[in-house]
Amino acid sequence: MHIVAIGGSDAGISAALRARELDPTVDVTVVVADAYPNYSICGIPYFFSGEVQPWQSLAHRTAADLEATGMRLRLDTLATDIDVSGHRLHLRGAEGTESHLDYDALVVGTGALPAYAGIDGLDRLGPTDGVHVIHSMGDTFALGDDLNARNPRSAIIIGAGYVGLEMAEAFTARGIQVTQLQRGPEVLSTLDAELGALVREELHAHGVIVHTGTVVRGVEKTPTGLTVHAVTDGAPRDYTADLVLAVVGVRPNTDLLQRAGASLGAGSAVIVDEAMRTGLPDVFAAGDGVITHHRLLGQTYLPLGTTAHKQGRVAGENALGGAARFAGSVGTQVVKVFDLVASRTGLRHHEAEAAGFAPATTHSVADDHKRYYPGAQPISLRITGDRVTGRLIGAQLVGRLGTETAKRVDTYATALFAGLSVDQVSDLDLSYTPPLGSPWDAVQIATQAWSRQHTRLGAHA
Amino acid sequence: MHIVAIGGSDAGISAALRARELDPTVDVTVVVADAYPNYSICGIPYFFSGEVQPWQSLAHRTAADLEATGMRLRLDTLATDIDVSGHRLHLRGAEGTESHLDYDALVVGTGALPAYAGIDGLDRLGPTDGVHVIHSMGDTFALGDDLNARNPRSAIIIGAGYVGLEMAEAFTARGIQVTQLQRGPEVLSTLDAELGALVREELHAHGVIVHTGTVVRGVEKTPTGLTVHAVTDGAPRDYTADLVLAVVGVRPNTDLLQRAGASLGAGSAVIVDEAMRTGLPDVFAAGDGVITHHRLLGQTYLPLGTTAHKQGRVAGENALGGAARFAGSVGTQVVKVFDLVASRTGLRHHEAEAAGFAPATTHSVADDHKRYYPGAQPISLRITGDRVTGRLIGAQLVGRLGTETAKRVDTYATALFAGLSVDQVSDLDLSYTPPLGSPWDAVQIATQAWSRQHTRLGAHA
Repeated sequence: MHIVAIGGSDAGISAALRARELDPTVDVTVVVADAYPNYSICGIPYFFSGEVQPWQSLAHRTAADLEATGMRLRLDTLATDIDVSGHRLHLRGAEGTESHLDYDALVVGTGALPAYAGIDGLDRLGPTDGVHVIHSMGDTFALGDDLNARNPRSAIIIGAGYVGLEMAEAFTARGIQVTQLQRGPEVLSTLDAELGALVREELHAHGVIVHTGTVVRGVEKTPTGLTVHAVTDGAPRDYTADLVLAVVGVRPNTDLLQRAGASLGAGSAVIVDEAMRTGLPDVFAAGDGVITHHRLLGQTYLPLGTTAHKQGRVAGENALGGAARFAGSVGTQVVKVFDLVASRTGLRHHEAEAAGFAPATTHSVADDHKRYYPGAQPISLRITGDRVTGRLIGAQLVGRLGTETAKRVDTYATALFAGLSVDQVSDLDLSYTPPLGSPWDAVQIATQAWSRQHTRLGAHA
Repeated sequence: MHIVAIGGSDAGISAALRARELDPTVDVTVVVADAYPNYSICGIPYFFSGEVQPWQSLAHRTAADLEATGMRLRLDTLATDIDVSGHRLHLRGAEGTESHLDYDALVVGTGALPAYAGIDGLDRLGPTDGVHVIHSMGDTFALGDDLNARNPRSAIIIGAGYVGLEMAEAFTARGIQVTQLQRGPEVLSTLDAELGALVREELHAHGVIVHTGTVVRGVEKTPTGLTVHAVTDGAPRDYTADLVLAVVGVRPNTDLLQRAGASLGAGSAVIVDEAMRTGLPDVFAAGDGVITHHRLLGQTYLPLGTTAHKQGRVAGENALGGAARFAGSVGTQVVKVFDLVASRTGLRHHEAEAAGFAPATTHSVADDHKRYYPGAQPISLRITGDRVTGRLIGAQLVGRLGTETAKRVDTYATALFAGLSVDQVSDLDLSYTPPLGSPWDAVQIATQAWSRQHTRLGAHA
């Protein structure tokens, strides 16, 4: 039995590890396009901030660690074609050498590629022009080289999502003046604007210049640097800097599977079932290239490292003949922005509405621990529940570092997984000691506020 | 409609608040034995450490706050007898004045009293002798006065449970040399000894002298101070200090309800149903004086502030004619000891065995966040699951302050509440960002370790 995984990131490696864990006799080969298997892409901003050095530290496991589990690695090798009926994968090595691998089961984890969001110039300009994306270790080295070579004093970051915010912090830590351009009315548009505003204040407090409502049209190289042509609040406006970093999202990298006959679904990602089967015989797929089964939404596209790990694990088990199922995402996400932590799980109001729920959302503020104990800090919480069924639909939290906000969102994530009602959150037996919580934890104070506002008292009891 | 609550602590006040929240027209009176309603007993150690000053800060709400909700307070008033058939409560005021209150529904929250664990002298010696317990604001003032008056340089703390450990930290912060005497083989006997040992190391690191395996026989006042007569590891041994604090647990304060005809159950606490009814007509009870409905154990006695809040809330709603149910504890507890956080939820191995489960327990260690990001710290975790059903039964965690250990236990608590299996913890969509977690969170790394050890792989999938 020979299992082949394509992709050295979370999905491919998780599949390979799981297969070897379940059956140490199975042959497993992982085909990796570059020389950097199992690198933590999520950690790249901390390399640029200087917090993680050297870059090799970003590896979850070294190539030697991986090989010690018994898997084979084919590095610097591109998977060019899948011969589905022949159970054969065609490859091209670093020097253009063609070869192939026969497989019994294939797991495709080709991930995603940076999106350009229709911004003119991003396709033509590159690292040598001071224009960067950041998605692979190759991108990382190119940006690192550029920073070292030119020592830029100013940078424009296009996008204020997770990576954009983390890179704003990283550049600021290096003494680079950051201007952050955000299309929407508020930064971190994956959270409600009331919470995004707290993140924007944190950016301001650390010297980041933020322009929201700014649609970038194009990037141009000029004799003195780079100019970003944009429309801010409806009026044309140019922004100039020494360096431009575009982090405007990703698009699934589906070319290989599409050519093999796979179908695309939500977000133009490859359709898979909950066993991570593509529908092509013995071809599984997982990670940022495939649709996401979501416990509240059904099929969607929501590329996240945690999901890629889970999907890869399922694919690896099933490639071996198992019957594992991906239990579904609830969309839990968290980001640290300077000293602030912003997180969400489940659906926001408008997402819930679109999904057919009858959502109501309540904003509240609760201390992370008893106020009488030193260092208490407010956590801002937004709870979305269903007015008709009383079901918990989503939660968003923003608190300062040290408020255990990242793991408080996990309580909601677990409640969502279990399908609990908003009222049942008050029934949860959560931990309490004055330095670290309250008899009713902040997560319960927030759901009780929701119930007071949206329930005829006792209606869902 | 007149609802009377007895007891100014968590249960009584929660009942009163809930009744007034649900029906702002209902008359509510709370009978409080002392002058300090709604004080945070859990916060007392932080008053002695100096972190919380003045003592008034320990009030969750002031008397004025409480009265602003529309409830009446009868302070310094002891409930002496319940005339069940007459729906009348007999009272004695501070100066011995007898009176009564007629009620439509009564909620008894008389709580617990310090236990003496058969230690000779604890019944005779008191604050003026330098011998203390710590359970009420009165005890707090007495200990505070003694500390101020005599400035003791050494203290023996009998007991190394939650309060004993917190008080060891508090006395140490005041420069008092603490000797802690613990009956069992390890401190914090509510956790497995492997984790208690980490707590003991933390005590040592901060200069606390710990004697485990030490059964205290008696406390004696001598011309030079206090002597504690004990047997340590089977041999008689005396310990001397300027002050003795006994924190060896509590016993339910059931006298009033017993005389009214209520029945006692687990831990000699008053039996109540899940609606917090005592069986006596229109008499509800909640808090540390009553048995605890536990989702894994059935009826037990497990006095905790969080539970008292929940039970009181249920009692308040039902006193008003509602149909609320206490959903049941899973025994979630957490304590901060210097810079360490120790927590548990659910059952430990021997408890699970006694309750008829087929437990297996796995110890593991996982980083609180990605190791490459600065400041990663190990969390020690012990997972107990059922070998036959695969169900999660319990979790214990010890990590340093800042590792979000207190809120990580809440993920397990929520999973226990929902009846998830150990394997399903890996299905949970938990938050991840490198500074605050891992793609598989520490809580999942621990359950995966359990599954590797105790599951035929895939058996519970």
